[in-house]
Amino acid sequence: MSDQQQTEISQLGEFGLIDRLTENLDSINESTSYAVGDDAAILNYQGDTDILVTTDMLLENVHFDLTYVPLKHLGYKAAVVNFSDIYAMNGTPRQITVSLGISKRFTVEHIEELYSGIRLACAIYGVDIVGGDTCASHQGLVISVTCIGDAPRGRAVKRSTAKDTDLICVSGDLGAAYMGLQVLEREKVASAGRNDFQPDFAGKEYLVERQLKPEARKDIVKELADKGIMPTAMIDISDGLSSELIHICRQSNCGCRIYEDRIPIDYQTAVMAEELNMNLVTAALNGGEDYELLFTVPLVDRDKIEKMAGVKMIGYICKQELGYAMVTRDGGEFPLRAQGWNPLASNNDNEAEQ
Amino acid sequence: MSDQQQTEISQLGEFGLIDRLTENLDSINESTSYAVGDDAAILNYQGDTDILVTTDMLLENVHFDLTYVPLKHLGYKAAVVNFSDIYAMNGTPRQITVSLGISKRFTVEHIEELYSGIRLACAIYGVDIVGGDTCASHQGLVISVTCIGDAPRGRAVKRSTAKDTDLICVSGDLGAAYMGLQVLEREKVASAGRNDFQPDFAGKEYLVERQLKPEARKDIVKELADKGIMPTAMIDISDGLSSELIHICRQSNCGCRIYEDRIPIDYQTAVMAEELNMNLVTAALNGGEDYELLFTVPLVDRDKIEKMAGVKMIGYICKQELGYAMVTRDGGEFPLRAQGWNPLASNNDNEAEQ
Repeated sequence: MSDQQQTEISQLGEFGLIDRLTENLDSINESTSYAVGDDAAILNYQGDTDILVTTDMLLENVHFDLTYVPLKHLGYKAAVVNFSDIYAMNGTPRQITVSLGISKRFTVEHIEELYSGIRLACAIYGVDIVGGDTCASHQGLVISVTCIGDAPRGRAVKRSTAKDTDLICVSGDLGAAYMGLQVLEREKVASAGRNDFQPDFAGKEYLVERQLKPEARKDIVKELADKGIMPTAMIDISDGLSSELIHICRQSNCGCRIYEDRIPIDYQTAVMAEELNMNLVTAALNGGEDYELLFTVPLVDRDKIEKMAGVKMIGYICKQELGYAMVTRDGGEFPLRAQGWNPLASNNDNEAEQ
Repeated sequence: MSDQQQTEISQLGEFGLIDRLTENLDSINESTSYAVGDDAAILNYQGDTDILVTTDMLLENVHFDLTYVPLKHLGYKAAVVNFSDIYAMNGTPRQITVSLGISKRFTVEHIEELYSGIRLACAIYGVDIVGGDTCASHQGLVISVTCIGDAPRGRAVKRSTAKDTDLICVSGDLGAAYMGLQVLEREKVASAGRNDFQPDFAGKEYLVERQLKPEARKDIVKELADKGIMPTAMIDISDGLSSELIHICRQSNCGCRIYEDRIPIDYQTAVMAEELNMNLVTAALNGGEDYELLFTVPLVDRDKIEKMAGVKMIGYICKQELGYAMVTRDGGEFPLRAQGWNPLASNNDNEAEQ
């Protein structure tokens, strides 16, 4: 490593770093239709099919804590979060590769348990495991999954194509996975050093399940197609509503308004926020890992969307100069910021220096 | 993690673990043509093209040591080893995704240096970077690359299709990358605690380059096509000749004979083996990371192969019951074993328990 001027990665953040690394990336191959910058890349090989590729890396004690995450659930989630990226392109996941870095405290049975979750997710979502890599790791478990999917040519939906006046829609409810993490962390602290400890999830079952066993919204993508609705832009909510909405707006050169009182929040999420004395809307805006779909549709689809169970219109796309804001219950405007979980931020004390 | 009977991963080894995890994996999707068990998976979407997918994970201090590996070289190698897997399928690499786990001791400039090597490899081999993921890592650098390539329908070459009497061929020379690693490790030990240390690679330049900056044999794949030679089976040599040849034989239900005096070895490799008092043929058989191509061709292609510079016939495929063996210089038979680098073996003391 040379002595040139050095910049802390936390100064740029994850997205800044990616922008810097992928500057001026020109495509060489005809089959590369759309590269970096969305949930998945789009490849055009032959025929009427676009091929979608996405990848995610999960590291122990950064993305998951095996104190309370069962290995089977972890495998399930590692697969599903990749499927979610393909659905967020309006595609169908078809194949995955699974690479594992495994430290010595894991036995064959542990890895089989992890794999059984991956296989279960694949069986449920109709995806094939086509390859991978396994190797030794010095510390902890490393999981890298790449998912390949397809969409009829020209039907893949990007983040960059939302238009002024489009309606902003979201599936399911938000903030529950984040609250589930708080529940699990609280029980972990309470159980420290006690062998007889029984965690108490009564009344929080939905939150814990949303954190440990998220599902990808295959059903929503199917229903949109069945109803003849083609989203103008779509993304899955992994980092939080606020962050994902800003991705769509920035890449589409638009602004947005969403309404505080329209953000879908489950009853258990609200109770838990109260218990923890946390701002509920902040949790719904910035709590990640919900894996719901955030998408925009043209105004003409309003009636069709209103008839869809489990989808809510939460606002509209506007001109770029109007910025990104939430209209609060009292009619004020609260600016949205991309403060989703930033794993590379300097206040994230998750580094054991070697 | 449950209390059921536990098996150490070292008891199975990497390949045993993979076999166990991928048992009874039935494909669901029509587009999944050939899944686990080769250098890359084969996908049939539409048209006359097969799509190839391969993935590799590299972990700091398991696969690379930044004491002597420059980041740019590391990036180059991380990309090239994936291209090599696509060439080993008789395909052309087209796209890669790059996932990075980054610990806090790395700056933006470090990661840019790493990426510059990846980009250089992509420019040279004509491959597009189409996506990836970056995240924080607790310890060290994690690199996971997935490569997508293509081959005309039905032209992808597997490991499982070698036939009795086929000729066994290998490109380039073997054992040099392993010897390069020995040189680098020796200089690392010599330099410990000294700031003024200048490593001495005189007369070992080829070995060091083979270890730090391997190339994928795009040229050989092209030449085979130009000469009208279609290999019956092919694999790239990442774990060592012996191990890779046994992969071909096992998956093809064949045996093999190779000749000690025909194994291609560079002069520098021989000198270094002498210096280290190591058995030269063992190094060529079991030293990995050469990224040369090992392939089989029908007997009728003998004359064409003989005219190819940089390709050597080293033996032949025989019936399974004759086993896997090397014919030594004195005419004896030495059984081949898959003792390539096993990163999951118990004698690999590379685990810092958490």
